[in-house]
Amino acid sequence: MASFILTDLAQNTWIDSFDLTPAQLGLANGEDWSVSKRTLRGGRRDGVDMIHINHRTLSMAIVPTRGMGLWRGSYQGHALGWKSPVLDGPVNPAFVHLSDRGGLGWLDGFDELMVRCGLEQNGAPYEVALPASDGSIARHVLYPLHGRIANRPAHHVSVHVEDSPPHAITIEGRVAESTLFHTQIEMTTRITTIPGSNGLTVRDEFVNRSDSPGSMQLLYHWNFGPPYLGEGSEFVGPIETLAPRDPRAAEGLDHWTTYGPPETGFAEQAYLARLQGEGPDGRTLAMLKAPGGDKAVVLRFQKAQLPCFTLWKNTRGLSEGYVTGLEPATNFPNSRPFEEARGRVIPLEPGASFVAETTLEILDQTHEVAAAEAEIERIQAQETATIYQRPGEPFTAEG
Amino acid sequence: MASFILTDLAQNTWIDSFDLTPAQLGLANGEDWSVSKRTLRGGRRDGVDMIHINHRTLSMAIVPTRGMGLWRGSYQGHALGWKSPVLDGPVNPAFVHLSDRGGLGWLDGFDELMVRCGLEQNGAPYEVALPASDGSIARHVLYPLHGRIANRPAHHVSVHVEDSPPHAITIEGRVAESTLFHTQIEMTTRITTIPGSNGLTVRDEFVNRSDSPGSMQLLYHWNFGPPYLGEGSEFVGPIETLAPRDPRAAEGLDHWTTYGPPETGFAEQAYLARLQGEGPDGRTLAMLKAPGGDKAVVLRFQKAQLPCFTLWKNTRGLSEGYVTGLEPATNFPNSRPFEEARGRVIPLEPGASFVAETTLEILDQTHEVAAAEAEIERIQAQETATIYQRPGEPFTAEG
Amino acid sequence: MASFILTDLAQNTWIDSFDLTPAQLGLANGEDWSVSKRTLRGGRRDGVDMIHINHRTLSMAIVPTRGMGLWRGSYQGHALGWKSPVLDGPVNPAFVHLSDRGGLGWLDGFDELMVRCGLEQNGAPYEVALPASDGSIARHVLYPLHGRIANRPAHHVSVHVEDSPPHAITIEGRVAESTLFHTQIEMTTRITTIPGSNGLTVRDEFVNRSDSPGSMQLLYHWNFGPPYLGEGSEFVGPIETLAPRDPRAAEGLDHWTTYGPPETGFAEQAYLARLQGEGPDGRTLAMLKAPGGDKAVVLRFQKAQLPCFTLWKNTRGLSEGYVTGLEPATNFPNSRPFEEARGRVIPLEPGASFVAETTLEILDQTHEVAAAEAEIERIQAQETATIYQRPGEPFTAEG
Repeated sequence: MASFILTDLAQNTWIDSFDLTPAQLGLANGEDWSVSKRTLRGGRRDGVDMIHINHRTLSMAIVPTRGMGLWRGSYQGHALGWKSPVLDGPVNPAFVHLSDRGGLGWLDGFDELMVRCGLEQNGAPYEVALPASDGSIARHVLYPLHGRIANRPAHHVSVHVEDSPPHAITIEGRVAESTLFHTQIEMTTRITTIPGSNGLTVRDEFVNRSDSPGSMQLLYHWNFGPPYLGEGSEFVGPIETLAPRDPRAAEGLDHWTTYGPPETGFAEQAYLARLQGEGPDGRTLAMLKAPGGDKAVVLRFQKAQLPCFTLWKNTRGLSEGYVTGLEPATNFPNSRPFEEARGRVIPLEPGASFVAETTLEILDQTHEVAAAEAEIERIQAQETATIYQRPGEPFTAEG
Repeated sequence: MASFILTDLAQNTWIDSFDLTPAQLGLANGEDWSVSKRTLRGGRRDGVDMIHINHRTLSMAIVPTRGMGLWRGSYQGHALGWKSPVLDGPVNPAFVHLSDRGGLGWLDGFDELMVRCGLEQNGAPYEVALPASDGSIARHVLYPLHGRIANRPAHHVSVHVEDSPPHAITIEGRVAESTLFHTQIEMTTRITTIPGSNGLTVRDEFVNRSDSPGSMQLLYHWNFGPPYLGEGSEFVGPIETLAPRDPRAAEGLDHWTTYGPPETGFAEQAYLARLQGEGPDGRTLAMLKAPGGDKAVVLRFQKAQLPCFTLWKNTRGLSEGYVTGLEPATNFPNSRPFEEARGRVIPLEPGASFVAETTLEILDQTHEVAAAEAEIERIQAQETATIYQRPGEPFTAEG
Repeated sequence: MASFILTDLAQNTWIDSFDLTPAQLGLANGEDWSVSKRTLRGGRRDGVDMIHINHRTLSMAIVPTRGMGLWRGSYQGHALGWKSPVLDGPVNPAFVHLSDRGGLGWLDGFDELMVRCGLEQNGAPYEVALPASDGSIARHVLYPLHGRIANRPAHHVSVHVEDSPPHAITIEGRVAESTLFHTQIEMTTRITTIPGSNGLTVRDEFVNRSDSPGSMQLLYHWNFGPPYLGEGSEFVGPIETLAPRDPRAAEGLDHWTTYGPPETGFAEQAYLARLQGEGPDGRTLAMLKAPGGDKAVVLRFQKAQLPCFTLWKNTRGLSEGYVTGLEPATNFPNSRPFEEARGRVIPLEPGASFVAETTLEILDQTHEVAAAEAEIERIQAQETATIYQRPGEPFTAEG
């Protein structure tokens, strides 16, 4: 395997720009891919590292500075990602203040195809009033929307290319959420794609670097806009149980799997689900089918790793964030205390690790889409889906 | 017109340093000006872009990184701006945390000749307690002093020089305050000066980039210290109505148009006014006359765009911020809910734009100052000024 | 004296990298030292300036970007500092948000051998509810743990080398905590070491740059891990009075001078003390003796400057911050209102200065350690130590 270290703080390694092609590795003709890295300048992206992988079919921009998130990509010329109201991203976390806007500061940088939420907590912001010894409020602690990990720059970044065909390309990054008296978890992500393939795999390993037991929450916020999202798009997934997050989501329950056109001022709807899976690890998949059914994006993951699934429908106007989120996670995006009381945190003993892997597949043939749908139907057939009409336990607080 | 793009994130354009002189444009001899751009390094200004315009009479430093504010200038050797307690500015917004100090974090970077306040809101910080479903407080949202726009780096910066004499020079910048579920407004500013002239014009256009109706507030915080501010300086403006902001300001009402010397620990006084104007757009002007009346700075603007005017008198000691603010605005610097209830926000339909233009003129001849004063007197003569003795509606809450 | 300016914002001076050796100064052979400066890149240290001093016996990393703190060093190959859970430091203050975590955001960058706490306040975070005119709460102001000074980049950095032997090397830095309507204090630090010596001196001068009287608090947070801290390490200092900070610290009172091994999840214990001193300035010292007594670190300072002393015992696991803090200060790390009521702030008239000087000595011979211990015993012999069994006045609130 050929490996190149782009950033490694422990070794004082940092490379300002980087370009790699098959020829540099002495690979045979016919290979057609590149990996490059640039440091962006100007605006709120000043100082942001960006890695581009390009191969015949897929391109993907990965942002080490934003917690190794996936910014945007394209497959066979079709955009992967969405058009966020953030006009000037990817935003350097130095310009994102999570505590702003009552804990919604995270939104100031939110424009990714895939952004991780966690690790101490994810989900809705909440505030805890710490009592003074006399019972009055000493001070307020705000737990911000979706946590810190997306706004932590990677302290190690490297590129690996397999020696033997099909010469899988991996971008490795390490990101720490580690502070005295708090969470001490280091993530190592390996984002792998095979040149010419129709997707990539994100494999994340989280290690508790503390001597004390710890815990974490993790949600993968995969976000898709056009052309995969459009009027008539359909969500397809093997549902075990599903509930609307709130009364607003309940309003849309009779057509929760289908998407409308961009609708100005549309108020978001979210559905919380347990999917069905196969085998001991609960292998499963979820699909967003484009209008007409000739294209789709599919996420594959395991319930053993990511037992909770949130579907976020945000079909606002095209200029204000027409997007849907497919969100496999360890928990539902409620406040951590709510989730913890229901056992939805991942305990991590000292030195122990938790691994989560998600594969993104992009389909551009009607028969491929049909095959994925058939696969989902096969899993669905194991058990009838239970759809709750109102928000409530154990998904969320009673509505 | 000769145009040069210094920054354009959408095109991945960013130029680290830039120098332009008439000779480079093949302009005839006799032209004597320059435009340059540098990226500052070190301290809290690390990474700050700074543009300098210099011509025979005027120099001006413009800071794209701080929302296209005007940092400092000089006219015929006289300083434009003030000596802020901020010793190490211009401060990179990465080091400014608006929520700090209970919403006064903006002050950590406040050292400009002209800084825009807005766009979601401006004015005093305020806090909103969001209720939980059981009526308790879920969390607190802090709206910070003077809003975000001054701490948003420009995502586009360009320089334009007119081909034909007098070869007006324009610095263009675009700054976005645009976030999912929040304000989505993009500002394009054009700051124009004519070589050899005694001033510049700031023309800002604000476009609602959302599909939904939006709104904004805007205040231009023009700040002057010596030599325009000094003992015996005088504010001259055509007042329609004016009220002190609070009891402290009421104390100074009998001499609100004149300035004292630097006074250690002086507590600020602010006066809220409607000016008179001329013509359908309410063209008007306000002047700060230097002691002796041989120099002055004048702001020209339109009431149709900027109907509210705040005069900020902060004649503290020279080392602690001896300064006065002349502040044309869409509103008074009260909290947004207070202003909104009185109709003092700018509604913006999707795609619609709001334009505000202010011209700074610097006068250095007694007869020029007298002429400006006569102009103001002529406008004032339309109607007798109403001066309220106490704070109150509709300017501010009853004192 | 040979002087080199690395950073001076007022002069627009900034040097990206710097290397200095005796040969460059034409110094005779036998001299063996270097001073270098680098700008770090990548991760959360992106843009951080780091100065390294190396001489035959001592090396030290100084971080201008983090308020001229001492990051890490080594003496005769033994590490000075500690292993913080912060894996990717030194952290650029742009990534530290003091208001995060309910005012504990400072911890996100805390990994230094010596970090200054202050200047407006230091100690525990606290919140003040500002009343509205109707008596309700207008908004909350959070005073963050340990204040701002450690997260303020230096606006001036220079290197000085004495012409005559022993060619003392000084790193000078200036850091401002200066904002309109708030504290306006500028610190000039001079960190001096003599090549071949066993220590360094940190001399800080704080000047009130305002026209109004001001005040400050200051705490030097010196932090040591292995090999100076270990099972059997001992704190030695000439105690006048000492009290546990809280019930948790009271639990450890019977062995407060000795240290246990790393203990997973150990809850910190802090002791607040007045030391005894000698002479009109109250010259004193405090020592951390390594297990076996063959090594030690000693801090020398004056009670006249730093009358309060906190001992922080945090013998958690090696991976979660096994460290002890020796903290000479102007106050105890309670909230500023508590300290102010007990006279433990430093008043500063306009233009006045306050100087504090601390010398770090590293001992690596048993007889040197014994001599320091004898020195402390001699001072201790002046008066019997008073050890309070419970937290309480005047050190802290009644427990």
